[in-house]
This record gives sequence, structure tokens and C-alpha cells, in this order.
Amino acid sequence: MFIEISEVGPRDGLQSVKSIMPIEAKKAWITAEAAAGVPEIEVGSFVPPKLLPQLADTAEVVAHARTIEGLTVAVLVPNLKGAENAVKAGVHKLSIPFSVSETHSLKNVRRTHDQMLDEVRAIAALMRTLPAESRPKFEGGLSTAFGCTLEGPIPEDKVVALAEALMEAGCDEVGLSDTTGYGNPAQVKRLVRNVRRAVGEDKMTGIHLHNTRGLGIANALAALEEGITTLDASLGGLGGCPFAPGASGNIVTEDLVFMLDAMGLETGIDLDALLAVRDIVIDALPDEEMFGFTPDAGLPKGYPGGYIRQVA
Amino acid sequence: MFIEISEVGPRDGLQSVKSIMPIEAKKAWITAEAAAGVPEIEVGSFVPPKLLPQLADTAEVVAHARTIEGLTVAVLVPNLKGAENAVKAGVHKLSIPFSVSETHSLKNVRRTHDQMLDEVRAIAALMRTLPAESRPKFEGGLSTAFGCTLEGPIPEDKVVALAEALMEAGCDEVGLSDTTGYGNPAQVKRLVRNVRRAVGEDKMTGIHLHNTRGLGIANALAALEEGITTLDASLGGLGGCPFAPGASGNIVTEDLVFMLDAMGLETGIDLDALLAVRDIVIDALPDEEMFGFTPDAGLPKGYPGGYIRQVA
Repeated sequence: MFIEISEVGPRDGLQSVKSIMPIEAKKAWITAEAAAGVPEIEVGSFVPPKLLPQLADTAEVVAHARTIEGLTVAVLVPNLKGAENAVKAGVHKLSIPFSVSETHSLKNVRRTHDQMLDEVRAIAALMRTLPAESRPKFEGGLSTAFGCTLEGPIPEDKVVALAEALMEAGCDEVGLSDTTGYGNPAQVKRLVRNVRRAVGEDKMTGIHLHNTRGLGIANALAALEEGITTLDASLGGLGGCPFAPGASGNIVTEDLVFMLDAMGLETGIDLDALLAVRDIVIDALPDEEMFGFTPDAGLPKGYPGGYIRQVA
Repeated sequence: MFIEISEVGPRDGLQSVKSIMPIEAKKAWITAEAAAGVPEIEVGSFVPPKLLPQLADTAEVVAHARTIEGLTVAVLVPNLKGAENAVKAGVHKLSIPFSVSETHSLKNVRRTHDQMLDEVRAIAALMRTLPAESRPKFEGGLSTAFGCTLEGPIPEDKVVALAEALMEAGCDEVGLSDTTGYGNPAQVKRLVRNVRRAVGEDKMTGIHLHNTRGLGIANALAALEEGITTLDASLGGLGGCPFAPGASGNIVTEDLVFMLDAMGLETGIDLDALLAVRDIVIDALPDEEMFGFTPDAGLPKGYPGGYIRQVA
């Protein structure tokens, strides 16, 4: 069984740190992580540089990432303008964050749900003008799907209804995001199951989890058990959301890949090579805290020989 | 569904820190955590004070803990001598660590498997001399069951065979311990299933997990899904094993209880009260690192109202 890791550190990680990573370090990071076998990297966002100066160089980062053979180059776009820039840059995949909490949506992108759905329709229309062979995949990411730091609990029916609305508005696929790190494994299973039932299993294959309350990896396990095959993660757990206070920390790519690898699931990733990529980020962002337990503890003695038998 | 948390910080946590916690702080910790609703606490070990001076006051700690109504007072014993002291002190439960890695057993308690089984038989004989109503529960804990920092991978059949041997030697129950933090969810499921199949489901209800590589909570979820109903955890993740280098960090009680509670599983524990217990440990051990994400992030906005629906 192949599980696809989508590294979101260069986007979700870098947007949440104060320092601006030099473009050469970004390129080295992406190159090294792709070389370690990571199949997809979210390399930046096409947002106004005034809002996120850390990601102002996204077009140039995309241009570099596209030269790496076999790598799926993904970006985040908040609106049609961002999607146009993403298409111009030649990305393979673009995601629009759609906050299930309308309060968070207004804070984050200053748009209501109706306005966001208009934006999604406009992007879908743009996609249809492109030849099929160069058309990027267009995903709607349901953020704050597990609860919102502003609104509190989010009704699960609302998540399902908005997933359907995103598909109707023209997304190729939807994803669930635990922007705030509120999710728990039972909730992950329910939401994944219900959204997949509503939109079709092949239209909901990915999930974006945070480790804010220490449950990120357990939530990933729950998602896997419901059939999810693409997991977002961030090297060193860098990341969060600047507009959701207290919501920091993506799940740690290194720990997640160790889990998948040890379970006998295929990721195509060389764990030792992945662990070595940390040095690039640490050198470029010496003041940022890097999370992760596997990097400190190291791999088990004699790993992997004899540990991995079969998936339960 | 009720899940029993067994707090092992006063034993596993304190044996791994250099500083000696004053007995008044130990008593305050145990009292506060029991008051928060934790049903079982492993309060110490009956080992020679020369080896573990941090736990030299275990008899006095047991005497205090026994005054707390409803609390199951557990201890660890390495041998018959320790069991005699535990019985004298009046514990409700005693566990003997039995290392599946014979190399680790020799390092940890200087005994081979055969010598350990003799010890188990001697303790079981002592138990039989006690009146049923005051007889403590006697558990055999299969340590290094998921891999050993000295031997490397541990054959799973060996774990099952030794679980059977422990039951034959007179244990009331067996448990699995991931002493080294090598375990992964697939392995947890396989081992729990196979050991329970061998010894009977009611004879294997508990598991002891570490978070050394960040998978502790995911492993706990895997164990729950296989029917485990007792989970060891340590406040602030304090703990490890002094003879298994690099193997530090029990799963964090606070994060685990948050997960269970958010999943709608009953623990009888008041989360806010549990989080407040940390201050006692931090004050008494100001130089020790306390782990856990939930304590830093706090509980979700509006928690628990509206978050918890039903177990998936």
C-alpha cells in the first residue's frame, strides 16, 4: 500500500515563522526533500507579498521545483488572482483554503462562504480553459473542519454540506484540514467517512493535520484506517496559521514517515535521507523551534531488518 | 466505554530523573492526581535504595496512597524480596518487569529468563499464602516487547511464548511494555491480538507505551482498537528506563486523557484538574523537562460542548 506524503513546510511552515527563508535555502530544502523521495511538496502560496512576505518568491520557487523530475509541485491560492499566477508559474496542483467557520474565513481571507464559492467557480472556469494535459489539479481544502479557535465547535453536517458545495462549484477534489489542532481520532474517522460518502471516495483522498494537542499522528492513523492515502506533514512540524491564535504545529514529517515505514506501508521515502534534510532548515532558520521525536531518538537498533512484518 | 488510566510518573518518571523528589511533593502529586479522577497510580518500586535512591521511600508513599479512597495503589517489584515488601506495605497491585530481551534482562535485573520465571513462581506462591480479600493483583510486564536497544528486533513469537510462560508461572495477568519506544501501530495491533489470543482476553488488558519516536499516542489508539482498556501514562511524559539508553519519555497523561475524553470515552478524569497537577511536579523538579502539547495549547474553545458526539 502506497501512502503519499505531501510536504507542506515550505508553505505552511514558512508562512508561520517571522524570519524570511532565503530563496537558495528554500530551493535546497525542496531539492533535498524530493531527492529523499517525497513525492509532493507544497512550495508556497500565491498571496499578496504584503500579507505574507515570507512567500513573496513563490513563482521563482515553483520554477525551481518544476525542474525536479517526478515531483508534484503544489501551491495554495486564496482567490482567482492567485490561481492565475499559479497557472502562469506552471504548478501541478493548487488548493484553495475554504474555512468551514465563516468567522475564520472572514478573518483569514475576508470573504463569506458565498463569496468563496464564487471564487471557486471562477477558478474552476479558468481551469476549463486550459488544455487537459497541462491543467493543474484543483483542490478545495476545508479548513477549521474539526473546530475553530474563533467559533468553537463546527457542526459535522456543515463540513459535509460544504464539501459537496465545493465539488459542485468545480473542485476536482476536496480535503479536510484540522487547522486548529482540535481533531481527535473518532472525529477524524467520522468526518472522513461522511465526507467520502457524500463526494465519492476518489474525490477525498487527503487530509491536513496539526499536532497542536499531541494527537496529530494518532489522527493520521485514524485517517489511514478510513482509507485516506495522502497525508500532509511538515518537516520539523513547522507551521500553523497566523490567523488562528494558538494553532501551531503541523504533524512532523519525520515521525509520520517513521510510523508508515515501520508499519510496512510504502512511502518511497528514504528515512535517513529525510532526517538529513532537517539540517538545511535548521541552518536557514536557526531561531525556529523544530519538533519531532524520531530525529532526536534515532531509528531503532537494527532497523528496519526484523521489525517490519506485515500490515495488521 | 471506560478506559482506565494508570499513572506511572511517580515510579517510571521519578526513577529516570536525577533529582530526588521530596516525599511531601510525591504525596501531594498522588493526592492531587487521584482527586482529578485518576483511578490507579504506580507510586514506586521496591528495589534496593542503592540502585534507585529516588524511590527509597516507596513504603511510606504506599502508606499515604492507601489512605486515598478508591485509588488502586500499584508498585513495581523486581523480585521476591520486593514482592514481600510490597505485600507488607499493603499495595493493591504489583508488577514484575520481565524483559523479552534476555540481554536487557541481564542488564536491568541481572537475571536470565529461567531465573526470572523462578522469581515469578516464588512470588505467585507468596500470593497464594495471602487471604483472597487482601491479595494484591500480580501482573507480569513483558518489557522490551517491541524491540530492544541492545538486541534490536524481538521476534513476536517469543513475546507470545513468554506471555504464556508468565501465566503458567502464576501471574494473574500480563501486560506489554514498549520500554524502548520502538513500537508502531501495526505491531501493537499484532502483538496485542496474538498475546490476548494466547492467554485469554481478560488476562491481557493493559499496555505501557513510550513516546520516544512520537508514536506513543497513535500506538495507544491502536491498542484501544484491539480491546485494551488500561493504559499506562506519565504526567508530563516523565520517564524512561535507565538501562536502555535513549529510551525516554512515557506517553503524556494529559494528551492521552484529552484524546480519550474528546473521543467520548470515559476515564473518570477531570481534564482541567489533571492539567493543574503539573504545577506540583514542575515546582518539585524545576530542572526536569515536562512534555505534552495539550498543556501548552489549552483545551479547544468551548470544549467539550459540541465536540463530542459518539465513538466512531
